[in-house]
Amino acid sequence: MSYFRDNIEQMSGYVPGFQPENQDVVKLNTNENPYQPSSMVCKAIAQIEPENLRRYPDPTGRAFREVAAQVNGVAPENIVCCNGGDDLLKTAIISFCDKDRPLAYPVPTYTLYPVLAKMQGCAVIEVPFDNEFNLPAKLISAGAPLTILCNPNAPSGSFINIDEIASLANELKGVLLVDEAYADFAEDNCARLVEKFDNLIILRSMSKGYSLAGMRFGYGIAQASLIDGLSKVLDSYPVDVVSIAAATAAIKDQGYFKTNVEKIKKERARVTKALQDLNFAVQSSSSNFILAGCKNCQADDIYGKLADKDIYVRYFNAAGLKDKLRITIGTKEQNDKLLAELQKILAKQG
Amino acid sequence: MSYFRDNIEQMSGYVPGFQPENQDVVKLNTNENPYQPSSMVCKAIAQIEPENLRRYPDPTGRAFREVAAQVNGVAPENIVCCNGGDDLLKTAIISFCDKDRPLAYPVPTYTLYPVLAKMQGCAVIEVPFDNEFNLPAKLISAGAPLTILCNPNAPSGSFINIDEIASLANELKGVLLVDEAYADFAEDNCARLVEKFDNLIILRSMSKGYSLAGMRFGYGIAQASLIDGLSKVLDSYPVDVVSIAAATAAIKDQGYFKTNVEKIKKERARVTKALQDLNFAVQSSSSNFILAGCKNCQADDIYGKLADKDIYVRYFNAAGLKDKLRITIGTKEQNDKLLAELQKILAKQG
Repeated sequence: MSYFRDNIEQMSGYVPGFQPENQDVVKLNTNENPYQPSSMVCKAIAQIEPENLRRYPDPTGRAFREVAAQVNGVAPENIVCCNGGDDLLKTAIISFCDKDRPLAYPVPTYTLYPVLAKMQGCAVIEVPFDNEFNLPAKLISAGAPLTILCNPNAPSGSFINIDEIASLANELKGVLLVDEAYADFAEDNCARLVEKFDNLIILRSMSKGYSLAGMRFGYGIAQASLIDGLSKVLDSYPVDVVSIAAATAAIKDQGYFKTNVEKIKKERARVTKALQDLNFAVQSSSSNFILAGCKNCQADDIYGKLADKDIYVRYFNAAGLKDKLRITIGTKEQNDKLLAELQKILAKQG
Repeated sequence: MSYFRDNIEQMSGYVPGFQPENQDVVKLNTNENPYQPSSMVCKAIAQIEPENLRRYPDPTGRAFREVAAQVNGVAPENIVCCNGGDDLLKTAIISFCDKDRPLAYPVPTYTLYPVLAKMQGCAVIEVPFDNEFNLPAKLISAGAPLTILCNPNAPSGSFINIDEIASLANELKGVLLVDEAYADFAEDNCARLVEKFDNLIILRSMSKGYSLAGMRFGYGIAQASLIDGLSKVLDSYPVDVVSIAAATAAIKDQGYFKTNVEKIKKERARVTKALQDLNFAVQSSSSNFILAGCKNCQADDIYGKLADKDIYVRYFNAAGLKDKLRITIGTKEQNDKLLAELQKILAKQG
């Protein structure tokens, strides 16, 4: 007999991408930024005094909220800090969903959503994307108290126009959470919609565009009425004194951030073209990864052969993804190694 | 109409103790350690490389778990890291409680427990302590799937003997979570019970004994079967690369830790005696705070008059606590300031 609730007992935990102990590998499997964080981040961390560690941190991370508000054209009361973006996803599902209140989202998408729903004991309404990853109209008729739209979507990298998202927010009676973990690599985002919709929550991460995956720092943008309720469900001190300092320093250095994002976008275009030349099906991506479909090869086989050479990409053994590989955009050197190895593997298969 | 679930809408969030912006105050209101963390902590933080920040952290904080296991005489697989002790409390309530599975705990105790229960939509069975804060026998007959015992208890500072807790674990059919956030200041703890009981979870915090309140780092100790289930409910990366390094350095430096704890215990004895001499009712405390009962004074009035002098203690406007003040043990100088000011206030009322 288990001590756990049935739904916890039955659920499989989320499995994050493999983290090799060996640092000397080409790691293109967890969508980390290939460039180091701004030098301002390490300076900010070095300035932490023992006295700051001894005391509880600022409960709401005000220093970060002020800068993030400026960057996004909103007010600090529209920003809530959280211990990584996943923390806000869990918080939203606790806040809006239960046995009688389902969660809706298009699929395929980030596979943490159903894990969190199972934990909360709420039903999920999974609405399939079409082959072009257009916004499915059925999300509206699903009528869920919480709808999550990952945009740019993972693992497809596809992007829904902001006007379409505004229409969706307008038509939905429940809350729309737009998971913009990868928005730093897209041409547009939903920040300007926050003042118009009292049912919209935007989720952002400092892990990708700002190279702080090691720090666990995310934030939400929404009208104050939603922020206040979410804050009751979050921990009293969701972020610590060092991560507040690091994230604030990172988001302040917009120049460095934009330079890195441009480098990644440039490499994204090059790798997309090169993979297409190798006969992979690759749609355009608005993210820091691309989804490459095998035409004349087995995706899991390629995955294993790359791993043998210490090149790690991501393979999902899931519906709609079994013939595809998700590949993070690395540095030029890392991408070159990947492409050269792929060419060898495919040549052998002739 | 609210977008939130009814229980979230109706609940009041937990209110942490006041955090004055002015650093130059006598802050005895949130049970922080008055001494700075080990110098090894700042050294460990200074050694963090930008590359560590760029990558996701070790998902389970293995470096910390190995040292914490040694310190507690268990194996690393008996340890789970979390983003502050509150994170494990929330995780346990999600894991074991729901509408049909209540949470039981003695009262008065840590006021976060009912907030988390409300969030999860589970009933609470609050069993009153007697005046000497003995273990209430009714906790067993309550038959809850999760029982929480704060030991040493907050805000009373009282301590239940480990043999009695072993009997409780033995008799309970559900899980017993012993919240040992303050165990560093007690003469004994439950660590040795873990190998005997498959229904026991011990919660520890690095905030109090190790002076790392600013870092948000707690951990659980339990048999691997419980750790595995709790890990599914926790975030995939509950602690970040810097907090793992800081907490590992802190727990390694047992010499510094023990010296500070002894200093606090010595001051605790002195302040207890001095408050009794000022005609407060003070029971012996096994924690880094004491609960002082007003005999001829109004606790909220004293609270306000101390705050006017930039001396902050904690007042709870709650059943059984309205005539009491919870006072954190500070440095000798801080405690002297508190005692001198109390003497003045009481003399005026005299």
